[in-house]
Amino acid sequence: MNKILVLFDSATGHTAAMAALVAEGARRIADTDVRLRTVDEAKAADVLWCDGLAVGSPTNMGLLSWKMKRFWDVEMMEHWAEIDGKIACAFSSAARWGGGMEIACQSMLTVLMNFGFLVFGVTDFVSKRLTLHYGAAAALAPREDDAQAACRLLGQRLAEWCAVFIHGRMAEHPGNKASARNLPQA
Amino acid sequence: MNKILVLFDSATGHTAAMAALVAEGARRIADTDVRLRTVDEAKAADVLWCDGLAVGSPTNMGLLSWKMKRFWDVEMMEHWAEIDGKIACAFSSAARWGGGMEIACQSMLTVLMNFGFLVFGVTDFVSKRLTLHYGAAAALAPREDDAQAACRLLGQRLAEWCAVFIHGRMAEHPGNKASARNLPQA
Amino acid sequence: MNKILVLFDSATGHTAAMAALVAEGARRIADTDVRLRTVDEAKAADVLWCDGLAVGSPTNMGLLSWKMKRFWDVEMMEHWAEIDGKIACAFSSAARWGGGMEIACQSMLTVLMNFGFLVFGVTDFVSKRLTLHYGAAAALAPREDDAQAACRLLGQRLAEWCAVFIHGRMAEHPGNKASARNLPQA
Amino acid sequence: MNKILVLFDSATGHTAAMAALVAEGARRIADTDVRLRTVDEAKAADVLWCDGLAVGSPTNMGLLSWKMKRFWDVEMMEHWAEIDGKIACAFSSAARWGGGMEIACQSMLTVLMNFGFLVFGVTDFVSKRLTLHYGAAAALAPREDDAQAACRLLGQRLAEWCAVFIHGRMAEHPGNKASARNLPQA
Repeated sequence: MNKILVLFDSATGHTAAMAALVAEGARRIADTDVRLRTVDEAKAADVLWCDGLAVGSPTNMGLLSWKMKRFWDVEMMEHWAEIDGKIACAFSSAARWGGGMEIACQSMLTVLMNFGFLVFGVTDFVSKRLTLHYGAAAALAPREDDAQAACRLLGQRLAEWCAVFIHGRMAEHPGNKASARNLPQA
Repeated sequence: MNKILVLFDSATGHTAAMAALVAEGARRIADTDVRLRTVDEAKAADVLWCDGLAVGSPTNMGLLSWKMKRFWDVEMMEHWAEIDGKIACAFSSAARWGGGMEIACQSMLTVLMNFGFLVFGVTDFVSKRLTLHYGAAAALAPREDDAQAACRLLGQRLAEWCAVFIHGRMAEHPGNKASARNLPQA
Repeated sequence: MNKILVLFDSATGHTAAMAALVAEGARRIADTDVRLRTVDEAKAADVLWCDGLAVGSPTNMGLLSWKMKRFWDVEMMEHWAEIDGKIACAFSSAARWGGGMEIACQSMLTVLMNFGFLVFGVTDFVSKRLTLHYGAAAALAPREDDAQAACRLLGQRLAEWCAVFIHGRMAEHPGNKASARNLPQA
Repeated sequence: MNKILVLFDSATGHTAAMAALVAEGARRIADTDVRLRTVDEAKAADVLWCDGLAVGSPTNMGLLSWKMKRFWDVEMMEHWAEIDGKIACAFSSAARWGGGMEIACQSMLTVLMNFGFLVFGVTDFVSKRLTLHYGAAAALAPREDDAQAACRLLGQRLAEWCAVFIHGRMAEHPGNKASARNLPQA
């Protein structure tokens, strides 16, 4: 089984709504087991278990929340350098566009790289308005169709990369699904 | 006179449209002289001249464009460490929200910090949808009212900080204009 | 009086040693009052009080510590958008060079920009081995002469910019002290 | 065959020296074909060819050089969204510690993520003084043993991840080589 953890913090419910959609997207890939955990309930064992990890946080002052940071500083500390080679990505909700969601995603990717994860963004567009090149970003809750599509696609891509790279399921490589992708016109 | 340089690169005209609005916003502050220069026409002398600088670039692969980078690597190289203490900010247009405009602004701020500039973002919101905490960001051209307002406010704030910090005009401090600002409700 | 706050978190004492040196550097500038506060004892009132702020944290997983993040997320939250226009910089100690101290400094500058601070790095070199372009960085404790010099210079530059920009003391502008600076040879 | 491209820009020869060491490290892994290319001679075909890519640049004003940026903006532009799922890392030489090498590595990783690469750093230490958590960093040329070791380890890890994830050679997983790794003591 392809094992995906969606780990998130949420104060207002916006990032929680994103997390549920990311989990839904991961489940699109066959034989994928998805755990959805808040930062308050997650344990190191959840991270150890997974092949791939999507980390979500509200954008707080341009970075991940202090509670999500504490999880990695404290709960995961003793497992540092034991979990190299998992695959990871990020998502974040800020109050407004331009409010720091991209930079907050980048801060989560920094933490994940520090722990030895291989991290990625998604090249695909989800609409004429939205993409997720450095992770899925939302202004407030993901209410619009494209904001929801971005979250689902992030989870799907995470499950695809884990299927391809960790389980050798080459049919799941996005390069083999070009017709289904929303890419810029040649 | 308060001297503001708006320096930009633009391939599609989107960042050029932002630059014109940034310049317009800077002119809101009395006794402010504004120069608007493309990266192809700008000279080191323009940077040496200014008190404050707004740098704009299309978001290309998540960072400033190679032409804007070349300006600082080549044209400005010999003036490195001679221009400390100016004030600066950034703006960028990407093809989509989530497409890297915040990270591209941050890349310009990195270059500017390297040259000794003091850099800033803007706390104010411009609408229920948009802010400019790390610089003004737009998806494609700044067509919507709030996207235009963000550009103008960036230029205005730059001119305000230069008026306050370089010319001692305390009346221009944004903290003294709270009633005119779009801030979150207490 | 020029009012400087040095606010830091430290687990091993390394960042605390840096903080003491930053404070010492700030005191080089006449008529400067310096407060040195740990993240556990600091209050929002300390930040409200200062003209300029140096924030220090151990590099934890490539970013500021969760405790320093909590300070800004929780303690300072209600003062967001009330403190625009102060001047700030960052410092960090990691376990090794290449261990993330620069990126951790950048994470603190992101938080500070979000709060409306103008942030800066220092162009000057402190030795053939070390500079502080994005803040003062140390590997473990600042034991070497140049590591100590970097911390002191960060504090000095912070006090200089506050003297110049907030108190109009142009004599303190680093551009007027070129003979005393360690700059690259022309 | 495991196919590794080491692509670099170098003005002073420092980054070129790093690149040669990165290539040497990649060759430690059996059945690995390594191409070493300067940014002036590299073609899009080299990037299309490789399984994994190490990108190196001098730290210029805190970011990758304009020439390396131009390679991705211009030469690679038409292949954007065609090369998702390769593996990549970064290396950079600055004039001094604290001079921006970590942030320059991060700028390269941003470009690479934009193109759909999975990017990584290395958890291992190479000495009491040096690590390469966000890529290999050097102050000037990699003259010291540990600076050379960091470059070699970066290339080795890149070849290992490609062997594991792209060619299914699980024996090359660093987690299966713990006794040979320089990790913090438990």
